[in-house]
Amino acid sequence: MATTATPVAEICAGAKRASRTLATLGSGIRNSALEAIASALVQSTAEILEANARDLEAGRESGLSEALIDRLTLDERRVEQMAAGARKIAALPDPVGEVIDGFRLPNGLDVRKVRVPLGVVAVVYEARPNVTIDAAALCLKSGNAIVLRGSSTASHSNAVLAGIAAAAATDAGLPEGALSLVAGGGRAELAELATQTGTIDLIIPRGGEGLKAALKGVATVPVIYAASGNCHVYVDATADLEAAQAIVLNAKLQRPGVCNAAETLLVHADVADAFLPGVLDALGQAGVTLHGDDRARASVGGAALIDAATDDDWDTEYLALELAVGVVDSTAEAIAHINAHGSGHSEAIVTRDTESARTFQLAVDAACVYVNASTRFTDGGEFGMGAEIGNSTQKLHARGPIGLRELCSFKYLVEGAGHVRP
Amino acid sequence: MATTATPVAEICAGAKRASRTLATLGSGIRNSALEAIASALVQSTAEILEANARDLEAGRESGLSEALIDRLTLDERRVEQMAAGARKIAALPDPVGEVIDGFRLPNGLDVRKVRVPLGVVAVVYEARPNVTIDAAALCLKSGNAIVLRGSSTASHSNAVLAGIAAAAATDAGLPEGALSLVAGGGRAELAELATQTGTIDLIIPRGGEGLKAALKGVATVPVIYAASGNCHVYVDATADLEAAQAIVLNAKLQRPGVCNAAETLLVHADVADAFLPGVLDALGQAGVTLHGDDRARASVGGAALIDAATDDDWDTEYLALELAVGVVDSTAEAIAHINAHGSGHSEAIVTRDTESARTFQLAVDAACVYVNASTRFTDGGEFGMGAEIGNSTQKLHARGPIGLRELCSFKYLVEGAGHVRP
Repeated sequence: MATTATPVAEICAGAKRASRTLATLGSGIRNSALEAIASALVQSTAEILEANARDLEAGRESGLSEALIDRLTLDERRVEQMAAGARKIAALPDPVGEVIDGFRLPNGLDVRKVRVPLGVVAVVYEARPNVTIDAAALCLKSGNAIVLRGSSTASHSNAVLAGIAAAAATDAGLPEGALSLVAGGGRAELAELATQTGTIDLIIPRGGEGLKAALKGVATVPVIYAASGNCHVYVDATADLEAAQAIVLNAKLQRPGVCNAAETLLVHADVADAFLPGVLDALGQAGVTLHGDDRARASVGGAALIDAATDDDWDTEYLALELAVGVVDSTAEAIAHINAHGSGHSEAIVTRDTESARTFQLAVDAACVYVNASTRFTDGGEFGMGAEIGNSTQKLHARGPIGLRELCSFKYLVEGAGHVRP
Repeated sequence: MATTATPVAEICAGAKRASRTLATLGSGIRNSALEAIASALVQSTAEILEANARDLEAGRESGLSEALIDRLTLDERRVEQMAAGARKIAALPDPVGEVIDGFRLPNGLDVRKVRVPLGVVAVVYEARPNVTIDAAALCLKSGNAIVLRGSSTASHSNAVLAGIAAAAATDAGLPEGALSLVAGGGRAELAELATQTGTIDLIIPRGGEGLKAALKGVATVPVIYAASGNCHVYVDATADLEAAQAIVLNAKLQRPGVCNAAETLLVHADVADAFLPGVLDALGQAGVTLHGDDRARASVGGAALIDAATDDDWDTEYLALELAVGVVDSTAEAIAHINAHGSGHSEAIVTRDTESARTFQLAVDAACVYVNASTRFTDGGEFGMGAEIGNSTQKLHARGPIGLRELCSFKYLVEGAGHVRP
């Protein structure tokens, strides 16, 4: 474990060496390591909370907001949750060694496409110290070495958490260097980490847009951006309006600050008058600020409850109690709007018409396309992946929830009997 | 089809619009378009050869090497080969719509992970005009719009080929913009194309290291680099030496200039004296320049045939009749050498020992790992993918041959009955 003055390049080289061994270890030893980490965390609760208290004190002195202080705060329950999270990940099926495809070629060569660890995954994150353990558990479970770089705000907490986890992992038989923490949470460390071509196989930012932008500017190693989402619910002419209202309320209200929450409601003109007054009233009562196009506003009698949407509203991820509302004349128009303004995360249609459902599924360009369900289900846990490290709106490698399989690559194993190419 | 003065951004926007339609078309219409392209090429042979003659004349005037002139040259047979290639790709199974995974969640939601086109794929390439058709066929078959950018050397040939193909594709029912060619083969067009974030979903370079380096410096859209390979054959202590010799000769000699040819031979010390004199003599007679470590040279009696390898030799992809030769004391040492010096492309062990074979497969970090077979089999055609657009040594998204499936993304289609998240 390197937490103090070890140079970033040296930490990464150690992680690469560890990854060579990790790739050959069976899941038993990796799972034991996660169990050992969980136990060590619980046993070291006092030490963890002491380090956390130092971060909290420094944070209060430097005037951190209450929201950030809350994210930073650990207590006995949160330590137990981290441990439980690691145990839950240990219990998941091993992605490593899964045969994704396999066939015998006409010449008799046997080919297997087998899932393998990526190698070294770097995770850069912000205030929440629990990410130290969540990310480490996911990476080690998938056979990767992990290099962590937290924020300076949580430096004491992260150092203690990473130190405990690394020691437990090594004691359980994982190679030295399987889990390391880069000391210092500054932009210099970020840039250095993001340019370790040849040792870092993937870097994942877990944090806000500022962190992602900082990374985008400097990264030369592959990055998967866990994106936020500009998600839509489209209520078709044939929708069950009761179900539609439940879905809209759920997609907007159940947890407004997350990437799979809805930001725009689109309604077919045929049902705008029947649907919008009720649902917008319910949203308004729940504290949602509404921005509508002319027809949406007309359908609720121009009520003051809904102001006029600007062009920007269609492109805004409010991540808050705020919703844009538009009326469209067809499923095709809804699809065109979504493909023009959406971020390719999660999109839903509510309809009873099979053709609308099918067209929407085919034509909407997004990671997750829902028929008659809330966008809020886009989640590794909900999808049965057990855990996730974020959601991707990229189209290459990982799209949608980034779980254990997405932290893997694959290789082709080819076996012959002296085969040569004619 | 845009070949003259249309700005790159406009071409890409048109391709994006076309990709929206392409994503919803069945394979029948895409296959018909490829058949139509094939027929149109054959029918337009005279026009194609005329354009090619202009490129050849300009090329000779500007002093192109004979090798480049050969790559540039089309004749009736090469036009027929392009057409046959497009027909062969049309006949392959459709990757689009394949259900990669599917399950019902405990709450009753039905989830399918379905293969979909990436959207718009840009292919940048060098002298060979046939890439125009090969790349277009692969991209259209996989439901992608394609934007081509060839080299200025082949500008007349490429313009005519792309024009014929685009017209045939549109006549067959593909949307306008499904196939376009960027006019101008300069670095400015390359840079502009490689920064069309939001329209270009993937850019693939098909050409030498210069092209890749130029792209690496400017690209902001995702790139898959079709890599060259520093491939090894390791002959273990227990190898069938006759089979080993056949594999080494095949891996080095069958086509020395390609990425899956062997560049280094590693031999276990136990069989160095028995194996090396024969195989190195055969290689030398075939014109291969040999660079050996001390033990390799000693095993052949210090013959002048094999000079002393420098540190650089272990990292060099000769892509020529040249081979580095080293002696190692164990499979573990061979693995360590390969992981330190290889480029992660194709690596082979020749052995009769199951433990060596298994360890080698587990621990060698490469796209394709061979047991008792030549590295030369790493190829989309050989792997039964029908065709490929290159080989990837990246670990994300595509590793190994880049075929039709690798030109696709996927999305999750989720169907419910009014499901909301509790």
